[in-house]
Parts: sequence; structure tokens; C-alpha cells
Amino acid sequence: MLTISIDTKKKQPIYEQIYIFIRQEIRAGALVPGSRLPSSRKLAAHLDVSRNTVDLAYGQLLSEGYIESKPKRGYFVSSLDELFELNLEVREEVAEEIEEEIRYPYDFSPSGVDMGMFPYNTWRKLMKEVLMDDNSEVFQKGDPKGDLSLRSAVRDYLHQSRGVNCHTSQIIIGSGMEYLLLLLAMILGKTMPVGMENPTYLQSYKVFEKLGYPVTAISMDEGGIVVDELDKSGAELAYVTPAHQYPTGIIMPVRRRHALLKWAKEMDGRYILEDDYDSEFRYQGKPIPSLQGSDHHGKVIYMGTFSKAIAPAIRVSYMVLPKKLLSIYEEQLSFFSCTVSRIDQMVLGNFLKEGHFERHLNRMRAIYKAKVTSLLGELKLFGDDVIISGASAGLHVLITLPKLSRFELFLEMLLKRGVRIYPISGYYIEGTPDKEHFILGFARLSDAQIREGIQIMKEVYDEILNESK
Amino acid sequence: MLTISIDTKKKQPIYEQIYIFIRQEIRAGALVPGSRLPSSRKLAAHLDVSRNTVDLAYGQLLSEGYIESKPKRGYFVSSLDELFELNLEVREEVAEEIEEEIRYPYDFSPSGVDMGMFPYNTWRKLMKEVLMDDNSEVFQKGDPKGDLSLRSAVRDYLHQSRGVNCHTSQIIIGSGMEYLLLLLAMILGKTMPVGMENPTYLQSYKVFEKLGYPVTAISMDEGGIVVDELDKSGAELAYVTPAHQYPTGIIMPVRRRHALLKWAKEMDGRYILEDDYDSEFRYQGKPIPSLQGSDHHGKVIYMGTFSKAIAPAIRVSYMVLPKKLLSIYEEQLSFFSCTVSRIDQMVLGNFLKEGHFERHLNRMRAIYKAKVTSLLGELKLFGDDVIISGASAGLHVLITLPKLSRFELFLEMLLKRGVRIYPISGYYIEGTPDKEHFILGFARLSDAQIREGIQIMKEVYDEILNESK
Repeated sequence: MLTISIDTKKKQPIYEQIYIFIRQEIRAGALVPGSRLPSSRKLAAHLDVSRNTVDLAYGQLLSEGYIESKPKRGYFVSSLDELFELNLEVREEVAEEIEEEIRYPYDFSPSGVDMGMFPYNTWRKLMKEVLMDDNSEVFQKGDPKGDLSLRSAVRDYLHQSRGVNCHTSQIIIGSGMEYLLLLLAMILGKTMPVGMENPTYLQSYKVFEKLGYPVTAISMDEGGIVVDELDKSGAELAYVTPAHQYPTGIIMPVRRRHALLKWAKEMDGRYILEDDYDSEFRYQGKPIPSLQGSDHHGKVIYMGTFSKAIAPAIRVSYMVLPKKLLSIYEEQLSFFSCTVSRIDQMVLGNFLKEGHFERHLNRMRAIYKAKVTSLLGELKLFGDDVIISGASAGLHVLITLPKLSRFELFLEMLLKRGVRIYPISGYYIEGTPDKEHFILGFARLSDAQIREGIQIMKEVYDEILNESK
Repeated sequence: MLTISIDTKKKQPIYEQIYIFIRQEIRAGALVPGSRLPSSRKLAAHLDVSRNTVDLAYGQLLSEGYIESKPKRGYFVSSLDELFELNLEVREEVAEEIEEEIRYPYDFSPSGVDMGMFPYNTWRKLMKEVLMDDNSEVFQKGDPKGDLSLRSAVRDYLHQSRGVNCHTSQIIIGSGMEYLLLLLAMILGKTMPVGMENPTYLQSYKVFEKLGYPVTAISMDEGGIVVDELDKSGAELAYVTPAHQYPTGIIMPVRRRHALLKWAKEMDGRYILEDDYDSEFRYQGKPIPSLQGSDHHGKVIYMGTFSKAIAPAIRVSYMVLPKKLLSIYEEQLSFFSCTVSRIDQMVLGNFLKEGHFERHLNRMRAIYKAKVTSLLGELKLFGDDVIISGASAGLHVLITLPKLSRFELFLEMLLKRGVRIYPISGYYIEGTPDKEHFILGFARLSDAQIREGIQIMKEVYDEILNESK
């Protein structure tokens, strides 16, 4: 008979104490494989506990396979080939290395947005409405493409402000561009050769690379991607940012757009992936229409995101599929659940439908326009020494400083004084630019930061130029 | 000189009227390629508008490539190979076919959860706190693996209640199992042969299939996956659900676990993918510990989700990587942003840390236990005609009706009377079961629905059996 010391004062239930004791005995070899355990009735009497308690302990041992039940004969210790132990001790938690990114007081990063004017109250109000008690629907799994009501709001927005022509059914909502690229890769179903603008958004390049797509870097001229070179490269998928090329800021003119669409039309299976990442912000004139709106042959896959227009953390992007790819998606891939939580989908859908998005965009456009104006004004410090481009749209501008040659020293000295700017050479898939350009993002900087940052830049510039003399 | 009729009463800005007019003229061929436009000064005087207005119109035409600027000579019409038109008319929106899923009053589906007791108030309160005005951090992009504070809460939970041994750094948060499988596929980096329990969770099977992994269906016996067969199959990745096999409900005994771990250890590059999809709900005894907790050789990839324990719409799942795969992830894949919005991450993190999750789980466990008890009680109607299994855990049980042979008729007659149950044959990758089992999920049904549903089932059963006589 097993003698188990039971402590009724312990927080641990009695059945668990019995279970642990027996398990320990089995593991330690004190109870050998094949040996028979006392019946639960006997053990209960022996330990002066209820039979139910022993049954529970035996049940657990049975579930985990430490003992076996033989009908009408009782419980027997299982044979374990080797000690199999659940190691429940906390393994030492090595303090996680949190890579503290150095923060520069004047960081002209092209990513990030200004959240100062975000309508938190509105968002909270919408969230509250969506979370009303009786709305349990919001917690059930939804449409794989995303909520119909959100997709329909996105469709209306894209149609009105980007000239995108599509049905609601062509829109797929996903949590971020990278995810949508993964989904697209599965729709395309093969690793077709990709032609990418060079320089480009390296995040997308990395996704293609990781998925095993052979990527060719295609040169750019003043009109954007060189279509002849694209054609010769053998690419079947062209990745472009026609509304505001990333990072050069080039707006693809109508003739180039036409040539690109013609390239796609010339061969079955060719597609254009239009990444319309920050088209919401244009400071002069009307928005540049999307390439998708001019496509009459189902050749353009359109992607966009709310990361720039609302917030990076929102993690809501969308993809508009041409009909042919849509039917592949519907046949083969709609078992992938939508990756955006339904709460977020509903809040965002209402944010769009109730006009909050439009108001927010208009407000942000004004704010960013003021910032870019500030930046351009401050750059006048450089007089004729600076050439500025890409300032009519987006959240960054480009500058060149033709008299400067010691770029590394320049960047290094700037960093020492807390100013970070981004050389365009860092955005090349391969090769380097003819002339070094610098990217100056302004979204997250205040007016004062912009002013002071450029002033420091001018001082450093002068210092280097004087030294070279 | 261009004569443009300008309507100052129109809502359309004047510059836009000029822009549209000239664009129209170019498209119509009235302004031929190469022809020179009047200077902005002259046209402004001619139209009696400010020069700035004309500059804006020209700027837009220039941006879109309709005209070109030649230094010191002025603006010229570009040559367009072919008419390139932005088609802004709304194409007819075909009413989207919304596939209305037929709803059965007594649907014993194994998916879905009971949201009736969800702590909406708590969730709303946490959401409100996270969305406080000064908390703009929540809208910036976060850690690719997921917020450290959420991962640390998940680690503590997994350690305490599932015996999972890991560092916070080994945990990756993602929006759903399918996404995490995509990520894992990229980490593994090659389409290695997969052995899956048969029957299984077909959703995962479809992901592997779609990604081109050769999948072998491995037989099950009363202890779960047959390791010998797995070994012979040449599989390098074993997909298993040891805590509560889906859908059979088999709990993998310790000896089988040991054999499985031994299989993985025997060869470099072999891994076990443990899908711990509903382990939170066990109604008798202690929870069955995870396989991961017994793995001392970095062979188990552990996955879990909050879909069952909180809500399917939450879209938060997690993956615990062994160190070797973790370093591949960190080197090659950490550029993929986390797919869960930071708001959701923070709310969930606080939900865990403040003890709400534990309370919710305990409440739900009691509710589901009452439901399964109800179901088992009602199944007594069948007397000795029914064999029940898998009832000690999870959100569904299995039954067999040995006297029944006309399964299709049975299911059909049930559907006619509003009762839907799920034959296990639908969960097979290939082949069919020796005996047909039926899955009865109970999470979303009320007590009354369970009672009435089983009563109808009994009536239909009797009818068929009487007919066969």
C-alpha cells in the first residue's frame, strides 16, 4: 500500500498531492512498470480521503499515460523507455536585450507620422460604440476578405480620391503590406521575375527576396522606371510607386504610365504592382490619379495602407485585385482568415463612413504642408548650393548638395550634433546613385526641430566646405 | 490664345477648370504635341485671373505629364502615343453576392465560442485606458515580435498553465495561426516533408498544401499519432495536437510523447509543431502539460491562440520558437512588422496581467463544463447505443453509434430538422475512418438547444433503426 503524506492545510488539492506523489514514484523507479496500483477504494480508505479524490488522481495519471487501466483488473504502471520529465522550474530568464535605438533630436526619418492631431476622442467613441454589450457579432470570425462594410468604405474612398475603379469584392483587407505581399505571392503561385524601381522601398524588396522571387533592379530616369529596361529584364511583375516614387518623389508622367500599361498588356501573365503608399498627401494641385484607374485590361494590382494617413500601428492595408487574380484568390485562398481584428475593422469602417477620415486627412494635409513650407523656407539658408526635389507630395523631400563630396564625413558630423538625414544610396537594391541625394522626412518633427536641424546642417556644411579649401 | 470659359460660380476651383480644359484639348488633339502654351503671365491676363492660378493649372499638367517644361522657352504639349484616360465614371457596382450561410437552430459546430459571458465592460475599460490622449506611443509601429509586455504576459501564462519553458524573446505574436504558419514556413526556408495526424485540423493542412509542402497523412491509434509510421514516411516536421487531438480528442500519453520527442531528436532538422489550440478547457483534473515543456533539445515549435479562450475575432496567436529557429527568424525575418495592432496588443497584455484572463477562463471553464455535462446527460437517451469519447477537455465531444449504418441518411434527416452534427470523415486528409464518428461541439449552444438537439437526434435515430428492421 502506498503511504502518501497528505497535508490538508496546503493550498494544493489533495488529489493533486496524490497524483504528484505517484508520478514521482513512477519516475524515480520506486513503482516499477507493470506493477499494480491499489484500487481507488482501498487507497481512499488507507489515506482516509474520499474515493472520488483518488479517482481524480488516477484519472490524471491515466490521461498523461503514467498508468494504464486493464478492464476488471485495475490500474498498472506503464513502462517508460526513458525518464520523461516535465521540467516546470523556471529556466533562468536572461534579461532580454532590448536594442535601445539611439534617438536623435533632429531625426529627418521618412517613416512615421505626426500623431499630435490624431482624433483620439473620436476613435475612442467609435471603439466604444463597436464594443456595446449586445454587439457580440464583432467577436465572431468575419469575412476572409475583411468586413463588407469596411471594404465598401475603402472602395468609395479609393474611387473618389484615387480614381481607382473596382468592385468591393476585389478588395482584400490585411494587416500590413508585408502580409498582403505574402498573400499575393500565393495567388500568383510561382516565383515570377520581378522588376523593381531602383532605388525603392527596401521592405518590399526584402519580402520578394525572402520568397525567392528573382528581382532585377530597373533604372529610373526623370519619368520614373525605364520601361525598355524593364522589358529587357524579362520581368513579369513590375513593382512601382507612380504617384510619388519612393524615395525619389518622382511623379510618373502620363506617357510613362501608358508605356508601362502597354508593357503589361503585351504578354499574358504580366502584372504591375502599384504601391500607392502615401498618395493622400499632395500639397499642390489635385492628387495624381492612380495607375489602376487607367488600366482597362486587369493588369494592375493596387495596394495601399492606412499607416501613413492614420497611424503605423493601425496595421490595416488593402489590396485591389484584378478579376483574374481575384478568382484564383477566391478558389484557392479564401480559407485564410482576415488578419485584422473585427473590432479594428468596424471602428475604421465607421471612421471612414462618418467622414472623420476625410476631415483628418484635410487637417493633416494642412499640417504637413506647413511643415514642408517651413523646411523649404529654412533650406534657403543654402542659397544656390541646394537642389530640392519631390516636395509637392508625401512626407519627405530630397536634396542634393552639388558642391559637397565628403558625404560620409558630412553624415557623421551631423549625427554627432544630433541631426540624422538619410542618403538615398541606402535605398538602392544594387549600384549607387550618380549623385548622392539626401532624404529629409518631416512628418514627426516640430517646426522648431526642422528649423534648428537645418541650421545645424548648414553649419556643418560650411565647416566641411571651408576645410576643403 | 486659349479661350477658356471660366465659371466663377462653380464649386470647382478656377485652376482646376483651366487644367481640365487644357487636358481635354490635348486629349482631343486640338492642342497638338510640340505646340507651345501661352506663358502663364499672358494666359492669366487673357482670362483675367491671377497668374498663380494659371501656374497651379500648368503645374498639375506638368505633374501628370501632359505638358513639358523647356528651360527659358516655356511649356510645350507632350506627345502621347495613345489616348491615356482616367476613367472616373463609376463602373456599375454589381451587387455583391453575399453567400448567406444557412443557419441551423441546433448547430453542433466545433468552432466558435460562447461570447455571452465576455467581460465587455472590462475590455472597454482597458481599451479606454490604452487610448488615453497622451499615449501616442500606441499608434507608432512596435516590436516585430509583438509588444514586450504582451509577450512577457503570454510567457508567464504559458509557463504556469501549460508548462511551456521559454524566454520572452522566443515568443512571436501574430494575427492568427495561418499567418504564423506562413512565417514559420519562411523560417524553415524549405518545403520539408510534413507528417500530419489523420484526421486533423484541415485549415493547417490547407496552408501546408498551398505552400507546396509534401504532406503525408499519418495514422492514429488510441495513443495518437503512430510514430513508427511517421518515421517511415520520411517526414521532417510532425504536426500534432497532443493535449487534445483535433478532432478525436485523444490525449497523447507520456510514452507516445516520449517516442515523438525521440523521433525528432534522432535527426538534425526534424521538428515537432505542437498546436495547442484549446488546451485551456479541461474539465477533469489538472491540465495536460504541453509537449514543449518536456523538450530539452529545441525540437518543439509551440503554437497557441486566444481565439478559443477569448474570441475568434481577436486574431491574436503566438508561436514559441526553439533557439535555433529563433536565430534564423532574428537574422532573416524580423523585418516583417507584427501583424497585430498595438492597441489590441496592449489591451490584451493588460487583460492578462491584471488577472482578467484567468478569471474569464475560470468562468468559461465552469460554463463549458456545465454544457458538456448537459450534453453527456442528454446522450443517456441513447442508452448503450452510444459510445462517447474526448469529453474530458475542449469544446466538442465525439460519439459513435455502432448500430447505425446509414450515415448519410441520418445526417440528411437531421439537417431537415435543423440539427447539424459533423462526421469525422470530413476531417481526413485521405482515407476514411474505420468507424464513423460524429463531432458534437457545444460552445455556442444553450442548454435548451443542446437538450432539444439531442432529442431530435434520438428521434431520427430511432426512425432509421425501425425502418431498417
